[in-house]
Order: sequence, then C-alpha cells, then structure tokens
Amino acid sequence: MKIKGYAAHGAKGVLEPFHYEAEPREDEVLVRVTHCGICHSDVHLVDGDWGDFFPLLPGHEVVGVVESGKGFESGTRVGIGWQCGSCGVCEWCEAGKEVVCRHHEATCMGHHGGFADYVIAQNRFVFPLPPELESASAAPLFCGGATVYTPLEKYGRPGARVAVIGIGGLGHLAIQFASRMDCEVTAFSTREAKKREAELYGAKQFVVGQPDSRSFDLVLNTSTANVDMDSWLEGLRPEGVFVQLGAAPEPLALGTFALIANHKMVAGSAVAHPAVLKRMLEFAGRHGVKAQVQTMPMAECNEALEITRSGSARYRVVLTR
Amino acid sequence: MKIKGYAAHGAKGVLEPFHYEAEPREDEVLVRVTHCGICHSDVHLVDGDWGDFFPLLPGHEVVGVVESGKGFESGTRVGIGWQCGSCGVCEWCEAGKEVVCRHHEATCMGHHGGFADYVIAQNRFVFPLPPELESASAAPLFCGGATVYTPLEKYGRPGARVAVIGIGGLGHLAIQFASRMDCEVTAFSTREAKKREAELYGAKQFVVGQPDSRSFDLVLNTSTANVDMDSWLEGLRPEGVFVQLGAAPEPLALGTFALIANHKMVAGSAVAHPAVLKRMLEFAGRHGVKAQVQTMPMAECNEALEITRSGSARYRVVLTR
Repeated sequence: MKIKGYAAHGAKGVLEPFHYEAEPREDEVLVRVTHCGICHSDVHLVDGDWGDFFPLLPGHEVVGVVESGKGFESGTRVGIGWQCGSCGVCEWCEAGKEVVCRHHEATCMGHHGGFADYVIAQNRFVFPLPPELESASAAPLFCGGATVYTPLEKYGRPGARVAVIGIGGLGHLAIQFASRMDCEVTAFSTREAKKREAELYGAKQFVVGQPDSRSFDLVLNTSTANVDMDSWLEGLRPEGVFVQLGAAPEPLALGTFALIANHKMVAGSAVAHPAVLKRMLEFAGRHGVKAQVQTMPMAECNEALEITRSGSARYRVVLTR
Repeated sequence: MKIKGYAAHGAKGVLEPFHYEAEPREDEVLVRVTHCGICHSDVHLVDGDWGDFFPLLPGHEVVGVVESGKGFESGTRVGIGWQCGSCGVCEWCEAGKEVVCRHHEATCMGHHGGFADYVIAQNRFVFPLPPELESASAAPLFCGGATVYTPLEKYGRPGARVAVIGIGGLGHLAIQFASRMDCEVTAFSTREAKKREAELYGAKQFVVGQPDSRSFDLVLNTSTANVDMDSWLEGLRPEGVFVQLGAAPEPLALGTFALIANHKMVAGSAVAHPAVLKRMLEFAGRHGVKAQVQTMPMAECNEALEITRSGSARYRVVLTR
C-alpha cells in the first residue's frame, strides 16, 4: 500500500509531501493516524543532529485507529511511541526490557513515523488507549509521558521528595505523575513566571535557583541546559538518585567525593518498556494525567516543528488529521 | 583511662607517641587493639587532604579483643571499621543504614583510631570475627572489604559480568568476593605484571586497556586515576552500573547520551552498614576471602604509612602490637 506523509530530505530541511510503499508483516499492526505529538527528538532528527536518516518522516507520539493487525480488533483506538520493534527473543526481550534490545527499532529513525496517514509497528509496541484518555492530550504520553513515568515507578515511593528540573513537555508531565503517586514535588525552573502552572500541575514548592542540601530522594532532570552537578549531588538525600532524561550536549561532571559519601546515584533513562508503558497509560487514565497541548493540522507540520524547535510550545504541539 | 598511640600534629606530620584520656560510655565497647590495617584514607587524613582533624590518631581497620562493653563477653575477638558511631534514632539508623546517618562518627576523624593500644566504639559498630578468619588478614576487611562487598551484594548476581578496575588494596578483595559470588570477573590494570595474581584471586580475564562495548553488568572502580567514562559507559551492558569507590580528585565526565541510551547508572559507595558488614565477614569466613597483607610492628607506623602512601603495599600493610 502507499502511505503518505511529510519528510525532510536533508539536515534542517523543510518537510515536504512524501510517500512510501509498505505492507504490514504477520506480526505488525497497521494504524491510521489521527494525532501525532511533536517531541524535541523529532527536531533533532530533522536537523540531522543524530545522524543521516534521510528521507526522514518524523513522529513517534502517535495516536490512531487500528486498521488491521494480529491481536487487535479493527477500530481500536491505540498509540505508538518511540519504539516500534525489537527482536523478541534476546535476554532483554525475554525479560520484558525491550527498550534495551540490540535490535530496537525506532518509529522514526530508519523507519517512517507518524507525520503520515498510516504507521506500521510490531504488535507488541501498539497500545490500546484507556477510554478515559482523550486522543490529543494522550499522544505526548507515548514518548514524553513514558520517559518521565519510568524513573518515577522505579525510584519513587509515597512521600518521596522529588525535584523536577525544567517545566516543559517532559517536566509538566513529570510533576503530574509524581504528585499523583503521592510524592512531594518541587519544581525547578529558570523562570518565575512558571510558578502558578507548576503548582496547578501538582508541585508543592517552586524554586528558581539551586536545591538546599539533602533535600531530595529523586531528581528528574528534563532540561538539556548545563546543570551544576555539585549542587545537585549535594541536594540529594542519602541513597538519592539523579535521573538524566534529556540528551544534553555537555557531559555531567560528577565529583567523586559527593557521589560516594552518601551512596548516591546518577542514572539515565529513556522511554519505557512495553509493560511499563501500559501501566503508565492506565495510571494516566485513573488519575487524569494529561499533556497540555496545542493542536495544529498535520499540513502545518513545518510551522509546528518550528514551535517545538524554538521552545515556545505550551507544552506540546500535537498534529491532527 | 589513658590510651596510648601515635598521632600526627599537622598536615603530613610525622606520627609521634601520643596519649589521651577516655572512658567508655554505657553503650560503648573498649577494645584492646592487636592489629590495625592501613588504608589510603589514613594517608589522606594524616596529609591533611580532608581537613584539619589534628591531633590525628589514624587507623580504622582494627582487630582486637574486647576488654569490656555491653553485649560482648570480654576476650571476644572483634573488629571495628570506618564508622564507630551514629545517632541510632533517625530514619536511616532505623532502617539499618547507619553509614548515611547525619551524626555518623568516624573512627579516626574527630575520634581517636586504631594506631593505639585501645579503641573505644559504640557497640553497634563492633563486630565479632568468625573463627575462620585470621586476625591480620581480616583487618583490611573492615574498611576495604566492606567497601567492595556493599555494591557486589547490592548489584551483583550469579553469572553477572563484573569488571574490577585497579588491583590494589580494594581491587584484590573485590576480585575475591565477586568470583566467590559466582560472578564472571575481568580485572583491569595498567600493568601486565599483575595478570597472574589477578587470576589467582579469581579473575577469569585480565585486560590492560579499555573495555569492549556492552561487556559488563557491573564495574567497580577502585582506582583514583582518571578513567575514560565514555569508554566505560559504552562498556556497560544495558541497565549496567558503574560504581565509583575511590575518592578520585578529578570529576567523572558523563556523556548524557551514553547514560540515557541503555538505562545505565553511575553510583557511589563507601564502607558498609552494620548488617552488611556482618554478612561480609560471614561470607569471607565461608569462602576464605582474605586480604594479602604485610605485617609490621605498630612502632614502625611511619614507615608503614609511607609504604601505603607510595602505593607499594602488596596489598595492605597491617600494624601489629
């Protein structure tokens, strides 16, 4: 079949109408796209920051409707995130840790993504939407939501003191998930103007500046700006974990003394394994977690991409068809 | 009572005969010292690298015999490590995580250590020696052994691929513990000459150089030299953990992409909580883990300290009385 979308043909190129031929394999699902969120990684891919994957058809926060595919009734409302395939048989896939499979396939990197009328993905990476979730505000959960939920589920607990650095596409979701997990959330921003919104999302405190000593059990850094790791390690409580979520250009400089003294950890995390992603969707449904989105028609994908590129999205642009 | 030992009176000072007055409190144990290992942190303390704690009476790898103290029969052979006290009532002490108590007291930092005829410590930080353990080779277990055992118990599992960087006081114990926990151990050194010994301790592979990609579940860095973190993060398998054990002078530079991609972690660890220290001693007794030591009379503590300072100990100097 012919799938029609928008693709860039070189680094920082304009997205142009594009089509490709594809047929779903036995284990794949064909999804008709209704919504597709735009993530900063779409911008990086279009800009060629992560290599040459052109022609590049972006989009990995897809919501749509199943046309056909094993295990799904057609018409089911589903979503697809960053990952669309894995080998299925290695030790990681066996353990339900598909994200780290060596044969991880990404939805819009060497595969055509969601800025299109259809997307094809392995059935293990297609997830039904709980009925409570509205399609537009659920689309960003598939990458942004998955990314912040994973470390909260892994390292959080009721009453944990959680810092969220950066109130943007990821941060505004992190505050919602963490506060609804009964964590005590402090939002860190560079802009005083974000205070009210941070509190509406569920932050108990709002800080422009650095953390106090021994304040947090868990820090989620959604920012890609340089952060002062001396101060953030100092700001962790014993056994605290600092989780880096953004692919920041500068390395993190960790003083070894600060790391050792109270058994601290710095971890990286990205997206979510399938079982975790399902639990995230169910949690979002039960607790009313939703992305704040601005929708635009898919035909305006270049303008939409520019809003994300410039950092002015509040907080996620979602393309609709 | 009068306790006699050796103390430095200023940074890099010579240790000179020294005495102080002290009486054990209700919850403290008086231990007559028979052996005391020398750790690199004793050198740092004497050299004033970690601040002004003078007069400084070093020694925190103590083995001796109980004179008196609640919960102990006199004559019991015991040891004392880095920590000699904590508040006992905070959330961390309640949870058996005394190392991270805010009121952590160190045996030879603001308290007089084991280069002496007696040491006094809170009874929760005095540990009976299993009968299988010989005193001299057990002394270094109380700091060096505790430090390497903690992350192995926390992050290890049978069959885990473990890298140990540096074959010295900590490294030669790490190889023994890890191999006896059924981990597959690779020793990394800068000197080909250490190959045979590393294998005798239990290393299956020996490497002078950098790790291959996706090789290790757990890396214990016992070295304080600069390590190439790009290559070590690349060398971790998915969800792998790099544990920093040495207080290296240079910060670790972590590329965020490498950290994020496969859910990797960098953690710090030091010494061991009391319950972990007890399990470490029992494990060492069952599996014949012992430090390779050279003993010297305590009166030669300056010469002994110099051997540790110069890095020529093989692998730990233990003072005897």
